[in-house]
Amino acid sequence: MSSVVGVDLGGTNLAGARVDGAGRVLARRSAPTPAAAGAEAVIAAMIALASELRDEATAAVGACSPGVIDSSGRCVVGACNIPGWEGMPIAGRLAAALGLPAFADNDARSAALAECWVGAGRGAEVCLMLTLGTGVGGGAVIAGRAWRGASFAAGEFGHMSIDFRGARCACGGTGCAEAYASANALARLGSKRLGRRVSAQEVCEAARAGEAAAAGALDEYCAALAALLGSLINSWNPDRMVIGGGVSLSWDLLAPRVERELAGGRALPGPLAACRLEPAALGDGAGVIGAAKVAWNGLEGAGA
Amino acid sequence: MSSVVGVDLGGTNLAGARVDGAGRVLARRSAPTPAAAGAEAVIAAMIALASELRDEATAAVGACSPGVIDSSGRCVVGACNIPGWEGMPIAGRLAAALGLPAFADNDARSAALAECWVGAGRGAEVCLMLTLGTGVGGGAVIAGRAWRGASFAAGEFGHMSIDFRGARCACGGTGCAEAYASANALARLGSKRLGRRVSAQEVCEAARAGEAAAAGALDEYCAALAALLGSLINSWNPDRMVIGGGVSLSWDLLAPRVERELAGGRALPGPLAACRLEPAALGDGAGVIGAAKVAWNGLEGAGA
Repeated sequence: MSSVVGVDLGGTNLAGARVDGAGRVLARRSAPTPAAAGAEAVIAAMIALASELRDEATAAVGACSPGVIDSSGRCVVGACNIPGWEGMPIAGRLAAALGLPAFADNDARSAALAECWVGAGRGAEVCLMLTLGTGVGGGAVIAGRAWRGASFAAGEFGHMSIDFRGARCACGGTGCAEAYASANALARLGSKRLGRRVSAQEVCEAARAGEAAAAGALDEYCAALAALLGSLINSWNPDRMVIGGGVSLSWDLLAPRVERELAGGRALPGPLAACRLEPAALGDGAGVIGAAKVAWNGLEGAGA
Repeated sequence: MSSVVGVDLGGTNLAGARVDGAGRVLARRSAPTPAAAGAEAVIAAMIALASELRDEATAAVGACSPGVIDSSGRCVVGACNIPGWEGMPIAGRLAAALGLPAFADNDARSAALAECWVGAGRGAEVCLMLTLGTGVGGGAVIAGRAWRGASFAAGEFGHMSIDFRGARCACGGTGCAEAYASANALARLGSKRLGRRVSAQEVCEAARAGEAAAAGALDEYCAALAALLGSLINSWNPDRMVIGGGVSLSWDLLAPRVERELAGGRALPGPLAACRLEPAALGDGAGVIGAAKVAWNGLEGAGA
């Protein structure tokens, strides 16, 4: 059966899979990321993983990586702890070593692609994904294609300002949504209200256990999250928003609060009615599936 | 020479033009909008204007209107003072009366199309337009095509929140950019700082005349405007942003302030470097040119 191989470069592990044209995983492999050994060691490990996974019917390789990845599959702005990764022609090196067409894109965008393909975004025409983790990442997928923007940097939803006179963000911005809507932000809010140091997950557990202070922290968190979602809904007018990252595991707690805030005015009625919110379905596995979709889209774009 | 006719429905006047495939205006007409007489009178006036303008080489008609216009060219959500306009099949009525293919879209989006075609957005791949008037409108154009969104409502940039705990907007939202970045907002800021009632234009004139309080109002206004621009730049990663509306006539005063705020962190360095800011070039004439472009795009999309 015709397939592609996807490789997801994470800070700790490489995940690889052979994936068919319908998004079914035919085989999986993983390996440690030799980050400290530098860029050459990492690309060699990615090549080795892809070699193990490919078979005679494999038509292409796709990779996803942190950072800004240009249309040739080169990492033009690094965003990871691998010395020398910036400038790495990821797709070019994979293609040369494997003798197959190869493509690469950013990891957050690849996760969005995967959700749209076989996850919570399936069937959507305009799907935005928001990943609520340590930071807030994102990606837009339009008609099954990743929206990369003019310089391959689109989707920095965590650095949209929702508080233009607010706190300074590490990026240099002011009032970035990341400071209010990330898992870290929920942990901070919860710790303050509960009077003890808690993680985002512990805030959710405390709310489930009936602690009013934790419920209050979730209310406050969801107002900010809904402000960001409302801005995205009003500007892009998507038909689906997929919420991923650790916080999305407690979506049952968040959804009623977020929906109340959105219906209360944080999104315009028309665009809101057109948009369905869904928690991500693929979890950490989204990256490698998305990398495979990058390969399928690349083959299609190349007229193959 | 092959042409189309564009008709721009304004609250007071109808503007019409015959326009060739390069965006050149071959003929112009205008007429009062019989808004108070209701929807039938208005569509009849639009048909009459288009009839006067068409010639034997006219291939299609395009119209733009306030409100949400669906892909069939029907006004599905009204946003103007014309009784009965909501539900009007604008394109269908023009086509039936004129015997020509007809198309319609929203007016703000049409202005963005026009700027991209023959104005300040020319040559851009991803062009966002922001109109700073009584309110804040917008539109996105990608590869020469209007970005309509899942329910034809994309581009409500004025209702992105930049202050999620801020003031309630007339739309029901909280901290909408419109309340800080519209011409009305600049007039309000200026009036407060100058201690007298002034318009947005008078604030700019006072700043030119060296009044420090007016310069301060512009500083404050441009911080909010840059927050909105930064959010758009970070999420969409456009290569061009066109600033229109009355306030853009003083772009020479605004540009250095906005650029300082953006470079100071309100946009991420990569997306910022990829994006050029330009004041609108077509002024009030953008709508009718955009309506013509809606017709040309419609013909192309229909395979004609």
